[in-house]
Amino acid sequence: MTNIAILGFGVVGSGVAKLITDNKNEVTKLGGDDINIKYVLDLRDFPDSPFADRVIHDYSAIVNDPDVSVVIEVMGGSHPAYEYTVAALKAGKSVITSNKEVVANFGDEFLALAKENGVCYRFEAAVGGGIPVISPMISCIGQNKITEVRGILNGTTNYILTQMFTYGQSFDSALRDAQKKGYAESNPDADILGTDACRKTAILTALISGKLLPTSKIHTEGITKIRDNDVSAASKMGATIKLVGRGISKDGELFAMVAPFIVSGGMPLSGVSGVYNAVEVIADPLGNVMFYGQGAGAGATASAVVGDLMQVMTSGTNCSAPVFKKCEDMLSFDEFSSKHYLALCKGCYGKVIEKIQNCTVIENGDEYAVITPVISEGELASILDELDITPKSHIRIL
Amino acid sequence: MTNIAILGFGVVGSGVAKLITDNKNEVTKLGGDDINIKYVLDLRDFPDSPFADRVIHDYSAIVNDPDVSVVIEVMGGSHPAYEYTVAALKAGKSVITSNKEVVANFGDEFLALAKENGVCYRFEAAVGGGIPVISPMISCIGQNKITEVRGILNGTTNYILTQMFTYGQSFDSALRDAQKKGYAESNPDADILGTDACRKTAILTALISGKLLPTSKIHTEGITKIRDNDVSAASKMGATIKLVGRGISKDGELFAMVAPFIVSGGMPLSGVSGVYNAVEVIADPLGNVMFYGQGAGAGATASAVVGDLMQVMTSGTNCSAPVFKKCEDMLSFDEFSSKHYLALCKGCYGKVIEKIQNCTVIENGDEYAVITPVISEGELASILDELDITPKSHIRIL
Repeated sequence: MTNIAILGFGVVGSGVAKLITDNKNEVTKLGGDDINIKYVLDLRDFPDSPFADRVIHDYSAIVNDPDVSVVIEVMGGSHPAYEYTVAALKAGKSVITSNKEVVANFGDEFLALAKENGVCYRFEAAVGGGIPVISPMISCIGQNKITEVRGILNGTTNYILTQMFTYGQSFDSALRDAQKKGYAESNPDADILGTDACRKTAILTALISGKLLPTSKIHTEGITKIRDNDVSAASKMGATIKLVGRGISKDGELFAMVAPFIVSGGMPLSGVSGVYNAVEVIADPLGNVMFYGQGAGAGATASAVVGDLMQVMTSGTNCSAPVFKKCEDMLSFDEFSSKHYLALCKGCYGKVIEKIQNCTVIENGDEYAVITPVISEGELASILDELDITPKSHIRIL
Repeated sequence: MTNIAILGFGVVGSGVAKLITDNKNEVTKLGGDDINIKYVLDLRDFPDSPFADRVIHDYSAIVNDPDVSVVIEVMGGSHPAYEYTVAALKAGKSVITSNKEVVANFGDEFLALAKENGVCYRFEAAVGGGIPVISPMISCIGQNKITEVRGILNGTTNYILTQMFTYGQSFDSALRDAQKKGYAESNPDADILGTDACRKTAILTALISGKLLPTSKIHTEGITKIRDNDVSAASKMGATIKLVGRGISKDGELFAMVAPFIVSGGMPLSGVSGVYNAVEVIADPLGNVMFYGQGAGAGATASAVVGDLMQVMTSGTNCSAPVFKKCEDMLSFDEFSSKHYLALCKGCYGKVIEKIQNCTVIENGDEYAVITPVISEGELASILDELDITPKSHIRIL
């Protein structure tokens, strides 16, 4: 019998309890042992839940119970998730989380503490919801030289962008639609400003490099500035626009960013629509692989959490865990190079294509879409500065 | 030091040796030990290879060497791969393979033997080339109720179909193109008749059900009958045609088949182009997840083989291996239900839509594309028989 405690009985926590109950046969067979949800920690009571009798409000009962071998932290937020995780690991309990914020901020510390105490710290559900991403990245492709990991990491923004491209909705109308459907919060900032994708990007970048960058140092743009004209320009290019988180580890240099990218129709990420997420890994000699699925929701997230639980139960103390080290040493945003899409007025596009050789120009209503060759952010900024031109829109091309 | 032997020094075998050499740092770190390729077994000599001094021609030297703990069988074919695998497992050596034929035919026996002898039998590279599919299916999503696994499992046929759809090439011309590019063999039958996809489908079906169906019992159609008119009809439907292998395990019934399917533009498999492969799993409560990447090639396949080696090296005898039992008890093809696309001449489509209610009809040049509602193979066959109509083409709809 494996005794576990669930911290937080919201959407994910109750989803975990439901999966363990509904799929008892599958879970017992795979985990090799019965699972007993001994405690559910929450501020609230749940008198109508089948787990009403497990609900407690005092965390110390869990930490001090030697029968509890695994703590499932699905509370969200940095505190008290941080303190609870540290206490559990120090008490020799494995910890599993879906909480990207706490992993992005303190993952290095937790992984080191887990190792010290001979237990596991796992966080499959923190990136890509139910999609197996982190476990395959560690166990199945780590024998490769991984140069980049990039993904559509936020379902809310991907839903909004898909609506804009498929139905010609404006950003505001698509956002309202997402809120109505429950895909976006009433305060949607963490999604639409890229904060959520940034945390996941920090975690993915750490997985390919061992280096956990502070989220505050990762250049992050949301999708709020994408205009209907940008949608029509991308469509004319046979492309779409996606909010992409990228972690690049090449030639000893590390770089991470989150921003909208124009993704051409042939690329795997271009076909990822609606609330779906996908993570693409570029590795040598493997080539490109992509993991695709539901990035959120009770069932999908619970699947990832319980998947981690299965691995903790079968691996014992032999966790194949990565090591993260905090690191601020990364390529500056100015040095990042890509092709750029610039939306320019009829009066000024000529100056730009005169200054930057080999641009492609697409007429797009009353403006011009100029596609530059590969050029660094710093160089482009100084050219636009010198010409005293502020593009109506500026989106990088993947 | 982990001593291994490679059986077969063709594209995959030399790719494995190259990966272990080129990515020595990654491999040693992940596997936790140095790897020594002690033997390479092949009929040929390779005087110019850096591994020339390891090449031997007598398998008994490998089986009888107690230093060799892992045998990598990348010879292909059923024999002597079968005999060599049995001998290695009985000698207490783990075996890793990329050989789908031998897994589809004898996987049940090998997995049982490995268990008996406290070693591992792994075959990630047998399905989807370099894409992590089998390991995540076992370790990351087995806590779900898996009702279906389906995939684009053969890169050659997917390349041909992509050429037909993207460039309007005929089947014959696309096949010649694939042969010129080295994607298809000079005798392409195993690919274009679906044999290769059928073996992979048998393996995937066993992974979700524990039951290994004989490939001879799996209804298998290739892509040779797909006409230009079918391409234009599917395009008019906003869809594409893919060779899909499906394993379905629902309500206690098991079913598997390989055939061309019309895949609508919104479905994840529709975007998988060229020589790429993808495997989609439908699970409860996870939903749909898809694994995408290169289904063949030296580097990608070697990545999967060495990924298995990493897991053997770190898991010791604690392999999370599935159990396969041979089984012939499956739903008959007649009972399989789906929507159907029937290409019919102008003179006879009327009789069909009169007999089958709620069909959709699309005019397509000098014929009609009739889309039926969901109906079983048996029922449809008897209706067409009764009407004495042989469709010009008959493709199921996913």
